[in-house]
Amino acid sequence: MKKFMSEDFLLSTETAKTLFKACNAMPIYDWHCHLSPKEIYENKEPEDITQLWLSGDHYKWRGMRSCGIDEKYITGDASNYEKFVKWASVMNYCIGNPLYHWTHLELQRYFGIDTPLSPKTADEIWEKANAKIKEGGFRPRDLIAKSNVAAVCTTDDPADTLEYHKLIAEDETVSFKVLPAFRPDKTLYIENPTFIPWLNAMEKTADTKIDSYAKLKEVLIDRINFFEEMGCKATDHAFSYVPCVRATEEDLEEIFAKGKNGEKLTQTEIDKYKTELFRFLAKEYYKKGWAMEVHIGAMRNNNTLMFNKLGPDTGYDSIGDWNIAEGLSRCLDSLAEEGMLPKTILFTLNPKDNYVLGTMLGNFQNSDAPSKIQFGSAWWFNDNIDGMQTQMKALANLGMLGKFVGMVTDSRSFLSYPRHEYFRRILCELVGTWVENGEYPWDEEVLTAMVQDIAFNNAKDYIGM
Amino acid sequence: MKKFMSEDFLLSTETAKTLFKACNAMPIYDWHCHLSPKEIYENKEPEDITQLWLSGDHYKWRGMRSCGIDEKYITGDASNYEKFVKWASVMNYCIGNPLYHWTHLELQRYFGIDTPLSPKTADEIWEKANAKIKEGGFRPRDLIAKSNVAAVCTTDDPADTLEYHKLIAEDETVSFKVLPAFRPDKTLYIENPTFIPWLNAMEKTADTKIDSYAKLKEVLIDRINFFEEMGCKATDHAFSYVPCVRATEEDLEEIFAKGKNGEKLTQTEIDKYKTELFRFLAKEYYKKGWAMEVHIGAMRNNNTLMFNKLGPDTGYDSIGDWNIAEGLSRCLDSLAEEGMLPKTILFTLNPKDNYVLGTMLGNFQNSDAPSKIQFGSAWWFNDNIDGMQTQMKALANLGMLGKFVGMVTDSRSFLSYPRHEYFRRILCELVGTWVENGEYPWDEEVLTAMVQDIAFNNAKDYIGM
Amino acid sequence: MKKFMSEDFLLSTETAKTLFKACNAMPIYDWHCHLSPKEIYENKEPEDITQLWLSGDHYKWRGMRSCGIDEKYITGDASNYEKFVKWASVMNYCIGNPLYHWTHLELQRYFGIDTPLSPKTADEIWEKANAKIKEGGFRPRDLIAKSNVAAVCTTDDPADTLEYHKLIAEDETVSFKVLPAFRPDKTLYIENPTFIPWLNAMEKTADTKIDSYAKLKEVLIDRINFFEEMGCKATDHAFSYVPCVRATEEDLEEIFAKGKNGEKLTQTEIDKYKTELFRFLAKEYYKKGWAMEVHIGAMRNNNTLMFNKLGPDTGYDSIGDWNIAEGLSRCLDSLAEEGMLPKTILFTLNPKDNYVLGTMLGNFQNSDAPSKIQFGSAWWFNDNIDGMQTQMKALANLGMLGKFVGMVTDSRSFLSYPRHEYFRRILCELVGTWVENGEYPWDEEVLTAMVQDIAFNNAKDYIGM
Repeated sequence: MKKFMSEDFLLSTETAKTLFKACNAMPIYDWHCHLSPKEIYENKEPEDITQLWLSGDHYKWRGMRSCGIDEKYITGDASNYEKFVKWASVMNYCIGNPLYHWTHLELQRYFGIDTPLSPKTADEIWEKANAKIKEGGFRPRDLIAKSNVAAVCTTDDPADTLEYHKLIAEDETVSFKVLPAFRPDKTLYIENPTFIPWLNAMEKTADTKIDSYAKLKEVLIDRINFFEEMGCKATDHAFSYVPCVRATEEDLEEIFAKGKNGEKLTQTEIDKYKTELFRFLAKEYYKKGWAMEVHIGAMRNNNTLMFNKLGPDTGYDSIGDWNIAEGLSRCLDSLAEEGMLPKTILFTLNPKDNYVLGTMLGNFQNSDAPSKIQFGSAWWFNDNIDGMQTQMKALANLGMLGKFVGMVTDSRSFLSYPRHEYFRRILCELVGTWVENGEYPWDEEVLTAMVQDIAFNNAKDYIGM
Repeated sequence: MKKFMSEDFLLSTETAKTLFKACNAMPIYDWHCHLSPKEIYENKEPEDITQLWLSGDHYKWRGMRSCGIDEKYITGDASNYEKFVKWASVMNYCIGNPLYHWTHLELQRYFGIDTPLSPKTADEIWEKANAKIKEGGFRPRDLIAKSNVAAVCTTDDPADTLEYHKLIAEDETVSFKVLPAFRPDKTLYIENPTFIPWLNAMEKTADTKIDSYAKLKEVLIDRINFFEEMGCKATDHAFSYVPCVRATEEDLEEIFAKGKNGEKLTQTEIDKYKTELFRFLAKEYYKKGWAMEVHIGAMRNNNTLMFNKLGPDTGYDSIGDWNIAEGLSRCLDSLAEEGMLPKTILFTLNPKDNYVLGTMLGNFQNSDAPSKIQFGSAWWFNDNIDGMQTQMKALANLGMLGKFVGMVTDSRSFLSYPRHEYFRRILCELVGTWVENGEYPWDEEVLTAMVQDIAFNNAKDYIGM
Repeated sequence: MKKFMSEDFLLSTETAKTLFKACNAMPIYDWHCHLSPKEIYENKEPEDITQLWLSGDHYKWRGMRSCGIDEKYITGDASNYEKFVKWASVMNYCIGNPLYHWTHLELQRYFGIDTPLSPKTADEIWEKANAKIKEGGFRPRDLIAKSNVAAVCTTDDPADTLEYHKLIAEDETVSFKVLPAFRPDKTLYIENPTFIPWLNAMEKTADTKIDSYAKLKEVLIDRINFFEEMGCKATDHAFSYVPCVRATEEDLEEIFAKGKNGEKLTQTEIDKYKTELFRFLAKEYYKKGWAMEVHIGAMRNNNTLMFNKLGPDTGYDSIGDWNIAEGLSRCLDSLAEEGMLPKTILFTLNPKDNYVLGTMLGNFQNSDAPSKIQFGSAWWFNDNIDGMQTQMKALANLGMLGKFVGMVTDSRSFLSYPRHEYFRRILCELVGTWVENGEYPWDEEVLTAMVQDIAFNNAKDYIGM
């Protein structure tokens, strides 16, 4: 029996161990996350491990709810100690869940605690971890720097003023870059109740009236220019499915006017607006050389009762099963035909679509960049050993694993960087197994370079920093 | 080379073997099957092994047809000996099929026969097995008791009088419980030719006219009360996909009237009726504290020629590929919003939807029960090593494996209990592998309790007995 | 560490090695490929390894584009040497891709070169391989004969005159059979710009006017008779999804007239035409005893810009995600009901549908043939270790692996026969693992016969030769 989560965790061969050593020496480029630039700037001391771990992590909340724990101990008014103890009680049931590994990687790497968390050890770990926090080194910037992070891309609305990005950039004591990333979901989701408030916020930031679709596009170009000045290199779009229903400018003006007035839109109108606005934006990204991330397949806010109590991003999302191949293909094709398809990273939340995306890439590769169209890493519900293996095997079988831009954390927590280590272990185990089985020749130089590229260099070269 | 299907069958590590020993000591709660209460009550001696094995098992029939065997030897008028020999001839081709393992588990556990079945050994095994049957111990109750079954839930139509359940309950010599489970498929499938005959049967049982949708609901409440009196703890629904098309009582009265008159209904009408009647029933189940099973994804009766000859459940069903996420989510949400979502067990026949269901659970978990929303075990066509591993890994990655209610046989055969042993071996092998690989700490107490819970206790606590 | 791609490549157990030895002694029946009968007849010496490897292989082209290589070095005017060097540069990035294994199997088996191809070894291998080609033995017939191929089925349009098949059949020096296969895609794809040109070509070949749907059917019967005379045993259809929208002869005449006039058809009209013409053809195949291949799920010509430059089959296809279960089931059922469902081999390009097809088979099996309905091997994007394992496990779990008709190359290259060896290794490793784990008893006679059947005999018996 192997020791629990030891140095060789997930590494079963000598080749894997050798490769991991080289791979994990690389810095991290966290090019897609949901960290708060405000929190990075303000850099406050955390109160205790519950605040660090449980105050905003909807993965853990779901885990607790799955054990039948009362909401009081999750998002309610129980004490931080009580909440920690409830979290510890989950440990006996979550074998095979990445939460178990993340919990212990974080305890090991940041707190030096090797003891498995359980109801029996909860009190001991509560004391030890909080004492360690008291010693310092747990403020946001400490944790990021300690994790060997070279740069972070946050996720920012076009209406955002990026004031904290400015402040961070001016602060010479920050050892890593914090770049904005352009995420205009509220701009595209014309059918959501968030659209009109977003328009108002955008008008305020831009200090102008947005009274037409044409004007909206003007404003967005300004914002893209502004984001570029602030160091933006990447953009991100969330879609249930990517539509491709073409429309004229007249159609779009009409649809925009309806949306602005809060009138109900048909599905065709919604799809037209999304198609053309997305296409418009993609061409602007192309001009900037930005990498365009497309996250497909989340079905959000499934529990109305809890949405009304807690709002979005509180653990009530799940995986959709829309047909995605045709719309996505036609949309990307329309951009390629105009010669303006940007570098694109396609993510799917539904693993049934791994082979759809893995082969979609090949339709649009060209010499603009090595693997110009990327298959984004296993994400959110797939961010586990099986999910990452499956995504990497699909990419290897269908595309070029050696050109992969690798891991994203997609995280809201400053403690989530061991997920990169987790990814790197899984990558090196996979490559090591192929080599040990005689499926690829052992060449330390080539293979070391490859895992280091996937860990860091490919993303740095592809997205820029 | 490991010995064929020996004591350590499917168990490759010491940890797995230790866990299996504890796990398999648990009784069985067969909370979803298609055993006949009449046959249990009548408790007849079987004629021979062909009657036990081949008289009603459409899994085996499909296997035989796949080998090109003539229907005469499957459901036709060949002798029982001829049918047995034909079944033996399949053995040389069905490597990797669970039928091979079920066949030999049943020969080993019930007949003490370790010889692999094949054309060469068919005669020898025919003789031995039939001799053993002649010795006795092969009547339905013998087989159930011998298999350490604590309780069985059958599958019963609302129009059923449950007379055999009554007789069994009154018979003190029956050592296990036989509980009814409420399965109103014919009530919901208003578009099927079975609807009007069902209505007539229901009117007869209830001794009343069902001339309106309102009256139908009244009668169903009475039946639910009656089933509860008879010990019912669970209910079951089969859906190709779960619709969510809301409707008014007026709509429903109109649709019901059309259905009752045998008029053709539109798909929207069918979906409205199913949505609202299912929602109505679900709320009644909630009041009773029943566990609601939802079996999604079967495409039934695909061969019209053979349906006309043999009827339903004769081996002509397969897996559908409907989009299931949105309808299911909205339907469950509508119940959760009213605070009346019952304990729910979601099954999918299409393994592409494992991650859809595995994440759907999390949308509706709360403190009503540990893992109130369950991901049902790999079922029917997925009831094999790969299918069970895949389902358990999905559940582990996305939910709480430790709270899983475990295996269902879904069987029509009194010899099918070794499928629980099969499931337990696969479970213990999976857990054992994680522990041996250092992915979860070895703690005999915790892990033994976990596999025993999954084998029996969780289902007993969740469903009740 | 195992030696790179040695004798025991992909074989990890003694059982697997023993089985592979027997399995790989069998000849090859390449019953579905895209080899050119003209090239086989003309039997020209290749110029160099670039011509053999890179002049028409869109798999390799996609690999090169995925590395960001300029089209000049792929389909452009760079020299053959430059193109070879660019291909060699891909090798460092395509770990885990079947291209890596195919490349080295071909170097080993045809050129006797064991050195891994890489930028470092490119020049050495360029020299060696070309010298070997100069020595002779690399003409199409040499390569086919050397690969132990008993028969090849090409892919031929109904309008094809099969003149080269005639010439090959008359040439007594050809040691293998070259049979036509009937592929009427252009006949069925009434909505494509290829339809009218196809009609014109068909009229020319048939020397008659095709001015009605009735006449089209007459002509097709003539062509089927002609193909039969030329040795045809199999037919092939490509579908995104198989529709089942029934129509009358009047409908069909009207739709055909519109198609012939180049008028735009509705999706329903297209589906009606495809449904009924496919059903008509299937019944003709049934009369002939032909095996009907159905390839489902390709989404073709996704890149309009490159389609306009390079035409079809140049590496711009990918996997679709249509819902396929209901249409396919109803269509096959309608044929079975008439007693005229031919032997059918169902292929899916989207692995999410493996379990849909794997269970669809069982709906229509009967005593016409052992596994009359076959699950076609992992194909195109799935023709890799994972894809083949997954398909074979699905078939084993759901049907009868022992009756499987096995591998297809689906290739355009005369060097692609090692893909059969690849398949056989994967098959024997899978079977060997089951036996070593005690999941199936070791019986050399039974198991050797089984892997030899899957490698050759089943296809020979099922399709004929």
